[in-house]
Amino acid sequence: MNRFWSKALVGLTPYTSGEQPKDQRYVKLNTNENPYPPSPKVAEAINAFQIDSLRLYPDPDTTDVKNAVADFYDVNPRNVFVGNSSDEVLALSFMSFFINDKPVVFPDISYSFYPVYCDLYKIKAHMVPVKSDFSIDFDNFPSDNGGVIFPNPNAPTGKAVDLATVEKVVAAHPNSVVIVDEAYVDFGAESAIQLTKKYMNLLVVQTLSKSRSLAGLRVGYAIGHENLITGLNMAKNSFNSYPLDRIAIVGAAAAIKDRAYFEECCSKIIATREWSVKALEEIGFKVTPSAANFIFASPNGKYSAHDLYLDLKEKGVLVRYWNKPKISDWVRITIGTDEEMKILIKKIIELLD
Amino acid sequence: MNRFWSKALVGLTPYTSGEQPKDQRYVKLNTNENPYPPSPKVAEAINAFQIDSLRLYPDPDTTDVKNAVADFYDVNPRNVFVGNSSDEVLALSFMSFFINDKPVVFPDISYSFYPVYCDLYKIKAHMVPVKSDFSIDFDNFPSDNGGVIFPNPNAPTGKAVDLATVEKVVAAHPNSVVIVDEAYVDFGAESAIQLTKKYMNLLVVQTLSKSRSLAGLRVGYAIGHENLITGLNMAKNSFNSYPLDRIAIVGAAAAIKDRAYFEECCSKIIATREWSVKALEEIGFKVTPSAANFIFASPNGKYSAHDLYLDLKEKGVLVRYWNKPKISDWVRITIGTDEEMKILIKKIIELLD
Repeated sequence: MNRFWSKALVGLTPYTSGEQPKDQRYVKLNTNENPYPPSPKVAEAINAFQIDSLRLYPDPDTTDVKNAVADFYDVNPRNVFVGNSSDEVLALSFMSFFINDKPVVFPDISYSFYPVYCDLYKIKAHMVPVKSDFSIDFDNFPSDNGGVIFPNPNAPTGKAVDLATVEKVVAAHPNSVVIVDEAYVDFGAESAIQLTKKYMNLLVVQTLSKSRSLAGLRVGYAIGHENLITGLNMAKNSFNSYPLDRIAIVGAAAAIKDRAYFEECCSKIIATREWSVKALEEIGFKVTPSAANFIFASPNGKYSAHDLYLDLKEKGVLVRYWNKPKISDWVRITIGTDEEMKILIKKIIELLD
Repeated sequence: MNRFWSKALVGLTPYTSGEQPKDQRYVKLNTNENPYPPSPKVAEAINAFQIDSLRLYPDPDTTDVKNAVADFYDVNPRNVFVGNSSDEVLALSFMSFFINDKPVVFPDISYSFYPVYCDLYKIKAHMVPVKSDFSIDFDNFPSDNGGVIFPNPNAPTGKAVDLATVEKVVAAHPNSVVIVDEAYVDFGAESAIQLTKKYMNLLVVQTLSKSRSLAGLRVGYAIGHENLITGLNMAKNSFNSYPLDRIAIVGAAAAIKDRAYFEECCSKIIATREWSVKALEEIGFKVTPSAANFIFASPNGKYSAHDLYLDLKEKGVLVRYWNKPKISDWVRITIGTDEEMKILIKKIIELLD
């Protein structure tokens, strides 16, 4: 703490992202990046970009990205908000809808940025314990709240709920904004985007970082009722009017338009995930059913999860570990290529021997 | 207002940026963009960029940009914070240092984003009237405040103060963070960066949008004492961990490293500004002395400034006009190329005839 810091920084513990080593010597399965490159259309669009035009401001409304998202999901562009990554979209959403006197509700095992946003904005957080199988206990979400948020599939467990369950949650909290954080939805869960046409309190947030292989380009979006989108634009235009640069706009629009490539990548990752889960189970690991591009796995007493993380790192494979209640026996493993997953399994078998 | 909006949006009037027409038919002198393209090194760096690497997250610490800034200004990289435009840097600075019970002080004629940040964070704003010649009245800045901010040169007047004056202000408010917003400093004012080594309460904010011709890439930075930079990093990492994409990092670092090109561009703009000021004065305009890449000019009763803005737009030249007290007789004109400024002067002469 420093005497020049404001109230906002008091007691704040920032989000810790996964390690981003600067060298390339790791099989990097720790931050849920896509093992496949972005669509060739992204390279085409960026290569065709006129670099001299960088002297001019970008389109503050990111119209091309908005239109591409709207086309892809069959919604109106007025129902789309685009931001610098889904983290920025979430940060602006907490600001726009959750700064109230009532607590914001989310599962205790979930994306660890949510409690950070609560701290930043001095919002009370009501964390509802997940059940023993890590499923979200929606029945215990208090009805008197200042907002509801959960990822579907959940992170870091990978567990998804079906659309009927999502709809029940949205309908059960008609006076709160319910945010469904669908960062990983394309790998096997059902999106709630179409429900935004029916429920004016539903906001669906997605990202291009995972299923579109664009973690390095920083683009996310939200889809919801026009009133919610207007609120998000007010917050954005009171914080930073042009968060997407010209090249990010061009690359993001190209990625979204290439549906075939997107579907192919997702299918490959799902296939790799399925055999990887089996392989881990065969060597005695517990694995939660995953609808994401990662799996949540426990050595199940055969090995300490923390040691597994450290020893795999030593052997050149990075996975993610949290020393936190309920999940300290687990590691989160991003789905890489088949080759990368074979290396992972081989290294684990060596360690177990 | 909508029932789902939070307290943060109550009474909020977002910042209005200058028009960004999607077609190219205007001589665009309204948003202080640089008329020259970015350094050829930027194109080289971006063309050499491996687009496939976009599947991976960027460096959250933007080390290459930080190091380039530190080298350029002869400071330690630990004294540099990099953000998605200087607007984001300012938004995070208000959050980190100005959310307090005391008012934040700035001139009443200044960058119009400052009062928006105050509204967003519910900070009291104490706006000190500029003098009749538009100079900032530092003697009337109250000593009991929660922070001080001013641009040097000031916007939209273009008026600069010398380094001795900046130092006096910083020294006069030892218990507050004093932010000097140097978006336009490279066009003729003195930077306070070296003073950050002497005063732990001074933060200098700059941008690549103007003097580095990179408005379209969204990169800004702050230089200050390590404690201030740590605070900014805490705020950033509690909001959005990776605001700069991989290509922006590469392009920004290349731009900063090319000192010769930067100096050449600034010199050209200064030369164009000098004859443009004279030309406007010759046709009877009042012009404030400018140290920026824009001039603040008044038709001085010969024409309504609002009509001038509208009529120039009709004739294909965009300038910026604010219908606000004290400045409603003035327009702000970005310095374009010599050719663009000749067109502007010619159109004004036609209108005056």
